[in-house]
Amino acid sequence: MSEQQDFTKKKLWGGRFTGQTDPIMHRYNESLSYDKRMWSQDIRGSQAYARALVGCKILTEEEKDEIVSGLEKVGQEWSQSTFQIAQDDEDIHTANERRLKELIGPVAGKLHTGRSRNDQVATDMRMWLMEEVELIQNFLVELISVMVQRARQEVDALMPGYTHLQRAQPIRWSHLLLSHATYFASDLARLRSLIPRISVLPLGSGPLAGNPFAGLDREALAKDLGFKSVGSNSMNSVSDRDFVVEFLMWFSLTAVHLSKMAEDLIIYSTAEFGFVQLSDAYSTGSSIMPQKKNPDSLELLRGKSGRVFGQMAGFMMSLKGIPSTYNKDLQEDKEPLFDAVDTAKDSLQIATGVMSTMTIFPEKMLAALTPDMLATDLADYLVRKGIPFRETHHISGSAVKMSEDKKVPLSSLSLEELKTLSPAFEADVERVWLMEESVERRDAIGGTSRRAVLEQCDRLIREIA
Amino acid sequence: MSEQQDFTKKKLWGGRFTGQTDPIMHRYNESLSYDKRMWSQDIRGSQAYARALVGCKILTEEEKDEIVSGLEKVGQEWSQSTFQIAQDDEDIHTANERRLKELIGPVAGKLHTGRSRNDQVATDMRMWLMEEVELIQNFLVELISVMVQRARQEVDALMPGYTHLQRAQPIRWSHLLLSHATYFASDLARLRSLIPRISVLPLGSGPLAGNPFAGLDREALAKDLGFKSVGSNSMNSVSDRDFVVEFLMWFSLTAVHLSKMAEDLIIYSTAEFGFVQLSDAYSTGSSIMPQKKNPDSLELLRGKSGRVFGQMAGFMMSLKGIPSTYNKDLQEDKEPLFDAVDTAKDSLQIATGVMSTMTIFPEKMLAALTPDMLATDLADYLVRKGIPFRETHHISGSAVKMSEDKKVPLSSLSLEELKTLSPAFEADVERVWLMEESVERRDAIGGTSRRAVLEQCDRLIREIA
Amino acid sequence: MSEQQDFTKKKLWGGRFTGQTDPIMHRYNESLSYDKRMWSQDIRGSQAYARALVGCKILTEEEKDEIVSGLEKVGQEWSQSTFQIAQDDEDIHTANERRLKELIGPVAGKLHTGRSRNDQVATDMRMWLMEEVELIQNFLVELISVMVQRARQEVDALMPGYTHLQRAQPIRWSHLLLSHATYFASDLARLRSLIPRISVLPLGSGPLAGNPFAGLDREALAKDLGFKSVGSNSMNSVSDRDFVVEFLMWFSLTAVHLSKMAEDLIIYSTAEFGFVQLSDAYSTGSSIMPQKKNPDSLELLRGKSGRVFGQMAGFMMSLKGIPSTYNKDLQEDKEPLFDAVDTAKDSLQIATGVMSTMTIFPEKMLAALTPDMLATDLADYLVRKGIPFRETHHISGSAVKMSEDKKVPLSSLSLEELKTLSPAFEADVERVWLMEESVERRDAIGGTSRRAVLEQCDRLIREIA
Amino acid sequence: MSEQQDFTKKKLWGGRFTGQTDPIMHRYNESLSYDKRMWSQDIRGSQAYARALVGCKILTEEEKDEIVSGLEKVGQEWSQSTFQIAQDDEDIHTANERRLKELIGPVAGKLHTGRSRNDQVATDMRMWLMEEVELIQNFLVELISVMVQRARQEVDALMPGYTHLQRAQPIRWSHLLLSHATYFASDLARLRSLIPRISVLPLGSGPLAGNPFAGLDREALAKDLGFKSVGSNSMNSVSDRDFVVEFLMWFSLTAVHLSKMAEDLIIYSTAEFGFVQLSDAYSTGSSIMPQKKNPDSLELLRGKSGRVFGQMAGFMMSLKGIPSTYNKDLQEDKEPLFDAVDTAKDSLQIATGVMSTMTIFPEKMLAALTPDMLATDLADYLVRKGIPFRETHHISGSAVKMSEDKKVPLSSLSLEELKTLSPAFEADVERVWLMEESVERRDAIGGTSRRAVLEQCDRLIREIA
Repeated sequence: MSEQQDFTKKKLWGGRFTGQTDPIMHRYNESLSYDKRMWSQDIRGSQAYARALVGCKILTEEEKDEIVSGLEKVGQEWSQSTFQIAQDDEDIHTANERRLKELIGPVAGKLHTGRSRNDQVATDMRMWLMEEVELIQNFLVELISVMVQRARQEVDALMPGYTHLQRAQPIRWSHLLLSHATYFASDLARLRSLIPRISVLPLGSGPLAGNPFAGLDREALAKDLGFKSVGSNSMNSVSDRDFVVEFLMWFSLTAVHLSKMAEDLIIYSTAEFGFVQLSDAYSTGSSIMPQKKNPDSLELLRGKSGRVFGQMAGFMMSLKGIPSTYNKDLQEDKEPLFDAVDTAKDSLQIATGVMSTMTIFPEKMLAALTPDMLATDLADYLVRKGIPFRETHHISGSAVKMSEDKKVPLSSLSLEELKTLSPAFEADVERVWLMEESVERRDAIGGTSRRAVLEQCDRLIREIA
Repeated sequence: MSEQQDFTKKKLWGGRFTGQTDPIMHRYNESLSYDKRMWSQDIRGSQAYARALVGCKILTEEEKDEIVSGLEKVGQEWSQSTFQIAQDDEDIHTANERRLKELIGPVAGKLHTGRSRNDQVATDMRMWLMEEVELIQNFLVELISVMVQRARQEVDALMPGYTHLQRAQPIRWSHLLLSHATYFASDLARLRSLIPRISVLPLGSGPLAGNPFAGLDREALAKDLGFKSVGSNSMNSVSDRDFVVEFLMWFSLTAVHLSKMAEDLIIYSTAEFGFVQLSDAYSTGSSIMPQKKNPDSLELLRGKSGRVFGQMAGFMMSLKGIPSTYNKDLQEDKEPLFDAVDTAKDSLQIATGVMSTMTIFPEKMLAALTPDMLATDLADYLVRKGIPFRETHHISGSAVKMSEDKKVPLSSLSLEELKTLSPAFEADVERVWLMEESVERRDAIGGTSRRAVLEQCDRLIREIA
Repeated sequence: MSEQQDFTKKKLWGGRFTGQTDPIMHRYNESLSYDKRMWSQDIRGSQAYARALVGCKILTEEEKDEIVSGLEKVGQEWSQSTFQIAQDDEDIHTANERRLKELIGPVAGKLHTGRSRNDQVATDMRMWLMEEVELIQNFLVELISVMVQRARQEVDALMPGYTHLQRAQPIRWSHLLLSHATYFASDLARLRSLIPRISVLPLGSGPLAGNPFAGLDREALAKDLGFKSVGSNSMNSVSDRDFVVEFLMWFSLTAVHLSKMAEDLIIYSTAEFGFVQLSDAYSTGSSIMPQKKNPDSLELLRGKSGRVFGQMAGFMMSLKGIPSTYNKDLQEDKEPLFDAVDTAKDSLQIATGVMSTMTIFPEKMLAALTPDMLATDLADYLVRKGIPFRETHHISGSAVKMSEDKKVPLSSLSLEELKTLSPAFEADVERVWLMEESVERRDAIGGTSRRAVLEQCDRLIREIA
Repeated sequence: MSEQQDFTKKKLWGGRFTGQTDPIMHRYNESLSYDKRMWSQDIRGSQAYARALVGCKILTEEEKDEIVSGLEKVGQEWSQSTFQIAQDDEDIHTANERRLKELIGPVAGKLHTGRSRNDQVATDMRMWLMEEVELIQNFLVELISVMVQRARQEVDALMPGYTHLQRAQPIRWSHLLLSHATYFASDLARLRSLIPRISVLPLGSGPLAGNPFAGLDREALAKDLGFKSVGSNSMNSVSDRDFVVEFLMWFSLTAVHLSKMAEDLIIYSTAEFGFVQLSDAYSTGSSIMPQKKNPDSLELLRGKSGRVFGQMAGFMMSLKGIPSTYNKDLQEDKEPLFDAVDTAKDSLQIATGVMSTMTIFPEKMLAALTPDMLATDLADYLVRKGIPFRETHHISGSAVKMSEDKKVPLSSLSLEELKTLSPAFEADVERVWLMEESVERRDAIGGTSRRAVLEQCDRLIREIA
C-alpha cells in the first residue's frame, strides 16, 4: 500500500483534504521566504565550520577547500540573484546545503557533521544582527550630530518651555532639541551595551547536548567569525533568543523617544503654534483639500512606535512558558527582528532628514513668550530679598491673579501695585521681565543658559565619538 | 531658481543627502506594496460611489457608465496581474484613479468629488474584512465540526484528567476534546458579534466634515455595497479603526485558545505520556537526529499566539493618544490586519488538519489511570453514607497516605484497613475503583459521563449551524 | 524525627532558610488580601449551592437552613468589618468556610460536597463582574448623555476641524464632541454584548470532571444566582477566563477612546489654541510656578490607557500556552480585573466631570477659522460649474499659492485674480467664504450641518436608552 | 457669591454632582497612598538639597541645620508609623514639606526654592530603585549559587535531553540546571548594566528649565546622594523614565526565563515524567481531591511572567506619544515599578526555595533514556569510519526504522542486521549504546560531559562574584 493511501486511511474525521504533505502546512512551516535574507551569514558560518572540522579530522584540507569554494559559488548565486529555490528547500540552511551538494557532490554531506540547524540558525542570526547594529549605530550618531549642529546654530532662539503642554518657563529652542538628543544619546549607549550579548557564538552546540567531535576548537571558530565570546552552555545556546528580545526592547524604547519628539514637532507645526515647518520632502498634501500640508513623516515616526512595540510584545509572548532548548515556536523570532531592524534604519534616517531640513520661526516662538511665564522668576526675585519661597510663591500667585483681574500682562503691574502684595518689591523688579535674563539665570549643569546649552552640545559630541 | 536648488539651500544642517523627494521617505510613506491587496474592494467601492454621484448630479448616467466600465477594466488588469504600477502611485486609491484616467480620460477626474482617501480607505478595509471574516467563520466551523466528530467516535476512551498537570480525576478523552471545542464555539459567537460593527459605511464622510453634495444617498450607497449601516458621524468614521482592533483582539484570544490546545497535545505526544501521535503531514524530522519526529505544527500554533497578540498590542499603541480624525499613524492598521487574517486562516486549517489525522492510543491513556485518582470518589462514597465531606476528605487523605506508606495502590487497601480509618466503609467500596463508574457518575450538565458528553456534541453542532 | 528536622534534612543546597512553610511562599500564594473583595458573591454562591444540595439529598432542609443563615452571619461580619482573618485563611473561600464551621459546627463540612474551589472561584468572579458591569454601563450612559446635552446647547459654535492636526475644514464644535460620543456609544454596545458570555454558570463543574451527585439541578442553580446560562463543559468551565480577558480588552479600547478625547482637549486648552478651559476641580497648580493651571485630569485619563492595556496584555500572556483546566497561573486573573474595573469607573466619572464643567471659548474657535480652510469648497464651487474635481482641486491649489505669494487671505483674491486661474469663477464665488454655509452644506448623514448634528444627538439618545 | 455657588453655576450640563473639589478627582489624582513608600528617599533628598542651598546663599548654616534635623524628625515619624497624613497631602513631597513646616515653622518654606516636584520625584525614584536593585542582585546571586551547588553535587545524574519536548539526546541533569542558570547569569549582567543609567541625578533641574540660583553645585549634590552622574539636560531629566522602563524590561525578560524553568519542572514533576518532586513547602493540596500535590509555586512563577510583562507594556503605552517634560501621565510610573520590584524579589526567592528543596529521582531519569536517543551517535560512529554525515544520518534513520518494524530497541539490532544497512559497522558499535560515553563525548566548551559541566559551574561562580 502506498504511503498516500495509508495517510488517507488515517484521516478518519473529515475536514479539509490533506495529502501526505498539506500545502498549507508547508507554507506554515517554511522560513526560506524570509530567512534567505541571511544567506551571506549562513555561507560564512558554514565556511568557518568547515575550517573547524579540519581540526577534528572530519575534513581533510582538500575537502575543506572544496566546501569553502563551493559555498563561495553558492553565495555568488545569491548575490547575483541567480540562486534557484527548490521546492523542498525549507529554510536557508537546507537550501544552501542542497545547492552545495549539487555543485561539489557527496563531500558536501560532511559539512553538517556534529552541527544542527539549532546552533546554525542562532549563529546566522547573531552574525546578521551584529552587522545591522553597526549600521544602526551610524544612523543614530548622524541623527544626534545633526541635532547638535542645529542646537549650536540656533542657540539664540528663545521659546516657551511647556509642562503639561501649558506655558511654563522661557527656554532656548536648542535646549528642547538637546533634551531629545539626550534621549538618543542614551539610546546609543544602550545599543552599544547590547553588543557583547549578541556576539556570543552558538555554533558547536549541536542540537542541544554539545559537539561530540574531539578537537573542535570553538574559541578559534568564534575568532574566525568575529564573535566576542563562546556560548557557555549548549542547551542554553540553541534556545537563547535574548539578543532578539533585547534588540526589540531597545528599539521599542528608542521608538518611544522618537514618538515624543514627533509629538512635540507635530504640535509645534500647527497653525496655532507655528514654531516650525517641515520641508516639502517630509510632508504630504491632501487628495481633496488643496491647502493642506501634513507632517506625515512625523506621524509615521509616532505611529511606528506601536509597530515595533508590538513585535517585541509578540515575541515575548511566543517565548513565555516554552520548555528548554529548541522548540519550533522560536521560528517566530525572525520576522519581527527583520522588520524592527528595517524600521529602525528607516526611522532614524527619516528623523535625520526632518531635522536637517525643517524651518523654525523664531519670531513666532518669541511672540509666544508671555510675562506670566516669569511668575517663578518673580517669586525668585523675592527669595533673593530673603523671603522664604513658599511665601514668595504665594505673593507671585497673587500678582498673577491681580494681573488677570486687571486684564493686563503680569509685567505691566506697577511697582505700587506690586508693593501692595509685598513691601520687598523695589524698582529693580523691572529686570525680572527680561526673557533673556530669565534664561541666562538657569546656568547650573543641564540648564537653559547659553553656556549650559553649549556645554551640552560638547558633551553629546563626546558621547557619540 | 529650480526647486532642487531651493531645497538644497534649505538643508542647512548636513546629514544624509536628501533630494526634493527623499527615496527613504517615499518608501516610508507608501502603502501600495501592501494595500494593493484591496484592489477589488477599491474598485467596487468606487463603482458604487460613481452610481451615488448620479444622484447628486455630479455625474450623468453616461459618465457614470464610463467610469464603472473603466474601473471594471482596471480590475481586470489586477486580476490578470497585468496592472502596471507607476512610480508615483502612493496607494491603491491613487493607483486605480491614475489608471482609470489613462483608460477613460478627464471624466475620471470627477470620481473623487466630495470623497477623500480618508473615507475611501476605511470603506475598502471594512469591505475586505467582512469578506475575510466570512471565510474565517467557515474554517472555525470546520474545526469544531471535526472535533465533535472525533469526540463522538472516540467517546469510549478514558484518560486521566489533569489539574496543575497532576493527575486529578478520570475523564473521557472526548470531554477534553470538547473542552477545547467549547472555547472555539465561544470564539465563533464572538466573531459573529463583530460583524455589525465592521459593516458600517464610512463612504460619504469626506475628509472629516461630511459630504457637501445635496442628494448623496448614503443609505443607498450602503445597500449597494452590502453594508449593514451608515456611519453616524463623519469625523468618527474617518478615524474609527475599532473594527481592526476588535478583529485583532478576537484572533488574539482565539490564538490563546489554540495555544492551550497545542500545549495539551504537545505534552500528550511526549514519549512519557504517549497518548497521541501527530500524522507525518504535521510533524517534521531533525537535520541531525534521525529518530526525531517533532510536533512542529503544534509548536507553531502555540508560538503564533505571540505573533497576533503583538499585532494587536502594537496597533493599540499606535492608536493611543492620537488626536481626532485622520492622522497618518493610522496607516499602521493594514499590515497587522492582513497578517492576522492570514495567520487566522492558516492556523485554523492547520488545527483542523492536525485534529483530523492525529492518532490516539487509548490503551496508554487507560494505563495512566491510577487508583489514587479516585480519592475524591472514595470521599464521596462516605458522603453518601452521611458523613460530611470535610471529614470524608480527611479520611480519604489518610487512606492515600496509608497506601503510600504501604507502597500499594489505593485500591489495594483491604476493607479491614479502610475500616481502621472509618467504620462506615463496607464491602461495596469495591465499586469505587471502577474507572468507568467514576466517569459515569459525573452526569450533571457539562460532566464527563457518556450522556453528558454526547449532549455537548449536540449542543456544539447546534451552535455552529 | 520531627517534620521540621526532616524538612531541614531535605534542604541540601543552601540558600535562604526555609521552614516547613516558607513565609514568602505563603504571601506569594495567598489571594485573600484581594479576593476578599468578593465576600458577598462567595456567600451568595454558597447559599445557592446549599439549596441545590438539598436536591441531591446531600443536605436536609434543616441543614440547608442552618448553613444559609450561618453564611448570612458571616456576610454580616464582612459588611460590618468585624470578620477576623485567621492565619491559615488562604482565600475568601477557605476563610468563609472556616468561619462558617466556627459558627455552626460540623454540618458546615457538608457545604463543599462535590464542589471545588475551581468552580467556586469562577462563579464568584462572574457574579462580581456582572454587578460591576451594570454600574459601568450607567457611568457610560451618563457620560454620553452629558456630551449630547453639551452638543445640543453649543450647536452654534463653529471651529476648525483638523486632520493631521492641521486645519482642514470648518466644523461644528458639537460635531467634534459627538465624534467622541460615538466612540463611547460603540463602547456601550460592546459592553452590553459581553454580558451573555460573562453570565455563564461554572458552579456544578467540580474540580474538572463535573459534579457526581445525582439530582444536582444546574439550571435551577443558574436561575437562583441570576446567570443566563449554564457552562456546557466542566473542564472548560473551571479554566475559562475569557470573560476577564474580554472585559480587559473592552476597557483597553474604551481607554484608548478616552485618550483620544483627552489628547484633543489637552491641545485645545493650550494657550496657543485656547478653545477650552477645564474647571478648577479638574485642574491642578504647580508647586513652583504660580501661574500654572494644568489639565491633570485629562493627562491621567490619557496615561491610564496604558495601565489598563498593560493589565490586558499581562493577563493574556499569563494565559498563553498553559494546559487545560485549572493551573495556579490563573490566580493572576483577579488583580488586573479589579484594578481595571476601578479604573473604568473612576475614569468614566472623571470624563463626565470634565465634560460637564469645562468652559469653551467660541470666539477663539471662530477666530481660528481661516479662509484657506475653504479651499475644498472653492474647488467644489467649480465642480458645481461642471469642471471635474481633479481640475478644480488643481485650480484651487493655484489660488492658495497665489494668496500665499501675495500674502493675502485666500478670500481676499479678487474675482479678476481668480479668473486668471479659471474663467468659470463668477461673482457668486463670494458665498464660498461664508463659514456657516460651508458647514451647512455638509448635510448628508453624519455631516456637520446643524440638522445632521442634531440628528446624531437623537440617535445617540436612542442608543443609550 | 461663594465659590461653591460659582462652581455650580459653571456646571451647566448635568452629570454627576461635583463640588469644587470632586472627591473622585482627588482619589484619581493623589499618589500618596503609594508614593509614601519613598518617604526615606524623599527625606534624604531634601536634606541634601538643603545642604546644597547653603552654597547658593539661600540658606544659612543654621537654617540648613534646622531643616535637616526637622526632616530627621519627619523621617522618624514615618519609621515609627506615627506620621499623620493630612487631608490635603497629595503626595509624599507635599506631605513631608507640610509636616516639616509644622515642626520647624516658616523656615521650612525655604526648602523648595528652585526645586520642583518634577525634579524631586525623579530623584526619589532613582534613589529608591538603586537601593532595591542592590537587593535584587543579591537574590539573583543566591539563586545562581544554589543552582551551581546542585549541579556540582548531582553531576552524575543522566537524563533525556529534549528538543520539541521529544527525547533527543542524553544529557546530564546538571547541564539542564546550568542552562537555566546561564540565563540568570545573563540577567545578572544585564541588571548590573542598568545601574549607570539609573544613577543619574535629576535634582537641580527645576520644573524644566534648570535651577536659577548661582552656586548650586549639582556635582556635589550627586556625590552627597550617591549618584554616579548628573543629568545633562534639565528638560530631559524631569521627564526621563527610561530607568523605569529598563527595569521593567529587565524583569520581564528575567520572568520569561523563570517561566521556562518553571515549565520544565512542572512537566518533570508530572506522574508521567516523574523526574523531580517539589518539597511540601512549595506545593499545595486540593480542597476536594485528597491525593493531589500541586506545584503551585512553579505555576505562579510562570504566571507572573505575564504580570510584569503587563506592567512594562502598560507603562510603555503611557509614555508613547506624550510631549516633552513633565505631563501627569508620568504618574503611572510608580505602581508598576513598585509591584515589579516586589514580584522580582519574591519570585527570585521562591525560585531559590524551590531549587534548594526539590528532590530528584535519578533512577527515573535513567529509565527514560532509550536507545533511539543514540541515533545521532550511531551516525557519528559511521562518520568516524569516514562516511559523510548526510549518508550516515540516512543509514541511522534506516536502523531506527528497522528497530521499529522489528519492535526491538535500536540497541538490540544485531551486528549482522546493521551490516545490511552499511558494511562499515563493526563489533565496536556496541560502545555506541553506552549512555555515559555519549554524554562524555560532548566535551567541547558548553557540552554535557562531566568536565564541561564542571567548567560551566566554575565560570558561573566567577560571573556572580
